[in-house]
Amino acid sequence: MSAIAKSGKLIGVGVGPGDPELMTLKAARALRQADVVAYFAKAGNPSHSRATAGSQLRAGIIELPLSYPVTTELPKCSPGYRDALEDFYARAAADIAAHLEAGRIVAVICEGDPLFYGSYMHLHARLTPRFDTEVVAGVSGMSGCWSAAGMPIAQGDDVFTVLPATLPESELARRLAEADAAVVMKVGQHLAKLRRALKQSGHLPRALYVECGTMAEEKMIPLAAKPDDHAPYFAVVLVPGWERRPQATAGTNAKAIAGGER
Amino acid sequence: MSAIAKSGKLIGVGVGPGDPELMTLKAARALRQADVVAYFAKAGNPSHSRATAGSQLRAGIIELPLSYPVTTELPKCSPGYRDALEDFYARAAADIAAHLEAGRIVAVICEGDPLFYGSYMHLHARLTPRFDTEVVAGVSGMSGCWSAAGMPIAQGDDVFTVLPATLPESELARRLAEADAAVVMKVGQHLAKLRRALKQSGHLPRALYVECGTMAEEKMIPLAAKPDDHAPYFAVVLVPGWERRPQATAGTNAKAIAGGER
Repeated sequence: MSAIAKSGKLIGVGVGPGDPELMTLKAARALRQADVVAYFAKAGNPSHSRATAGSQLRAGIIELPLSYPVTTELPKCSPGYRDALEDFYARAAADIAAHLEAGRIVAVICEGDPLFYGSYMHLHARLTPRFDTEVVAGVSGMSGCWSAAGMPIAQGDDVFTVLPATLPESELARRLAEADAAVVMKVGQHLAKLRRALKQSGHLPRALYVECGTMAEEKMIPLAAKPDDHAPYFAVVLVPGWERRPQATAGTNAKAIAGGER
Repeated sequence: MSAIAKSGKLIGVGVGPGDPELMTLKAARALRQADVVAYFAKAGNPSHSRATAGSQLRAGIIELPLSYPVTTELPKCSPGYRDALEDFYARAAADIAAHLEAGRIVAVICEGDPLFYGSYMHLHARLTPRFDTEVVAGVSGMSGCWSAAGMPIAQGDDVFTVLPATLPESELARRLAEADAAVVMKVGQHLAKLRRALKQSGHLPRALYVECGTMAEEKMIPLAAKPDDHAPYFAVVLVPGWERRPQATAGTNAKAIAGGER
């Protein structure tokens, strides 16, 4: 650094859905050029995004893991939970700000796309007013899923909707019925409810259940054929649009993983 | 090729929103390894996707431009227009099939993400039943736009919707009012109507108008500040969600391009 203080740069780097090759050339360059890499991780767990980005990081880079607070004793809708998360994001932003003030380039590794349902946004909102910022778009997790399934998701004048499975059943059913194509996220403990909502909206026969799209542990199965309602938090359900596609046989090459469900 | 005939492979390669660096490592590798590259183009116009992918193609690769038929004399909703397009896609699929039958790897260059509103899907649907197929996910055009704007688009339990501007005004207004976050595509001649629908739904103050996101010709301006209703077909309007973001000052770093509108 020169004698004249110059503040650094924050870069939100989307590294894509999990397959390290689905990172962009720009993301790889940003990671190689960074002085510091920061990434979110659950306390005690390895970071997915750190693993995806690993091969691009130069030796000796400063690593700043941001470990979510352990809040298992607090209900997610409680003020205590919200306060703990607010504190966590504020501290993470302050830690990054210290590096930026020292003139360093800080790359925050983001799964998927940084500004599409990503934790990075909590840092971005706090730091963009004060520091030079750049966002490197990434392939979203859901795009990784429908591409791995070979499933055309939306075409032409389709209305496409992303819904959290946390919505009440009646609202899920109504919104699904109104969409030509949909992705339901955060499936987790909501799969039984989601299955009923999909049945009600008429979309169950074409719904595809996907876990860990593009990763080694990838699993996919038509939801109607999935024998149980167990699902991890990050599982998604895809409902393809494009009803007037050329031929009925040409929908998806999704492979049902017989017996591969948990 | 060996003496035993082996059919080739079709790869739908997403090359991202326009900036050649927003191509994935996997897309770059697929393009380098292909025997044939195919791409859509408007008759008489250079292909955007071919230009984005250009630096990755090896010398001597077989190029297969797929030129849309000239149908300016036909209304888009007419049977004649639909038939002309159907014929075109069928012929394009047959041209690619000939290369696949000869054992070649054919990469179809796709702007954005291949299975998200992409023309590639018309080939995919026709060819997947007969040939080995792979899809390389890409950064979507809209993701390029909100990333270039530094605009967090959706967070937490937001409902996110993609709408074509071709919908009737009342339906646009109703669907916009129901969404936490939205992207409106195919703005073109529909901007005046879209502006009224956004006003009605209460979303006009936070709507951002974007042309050519991530490209050299990129333009963005808050829609409320855009002095006219001229827009090219591929312009988009972004409506960010995440209403409970940390602070009011931290929304977007979109720069209004004073006087830069057409």
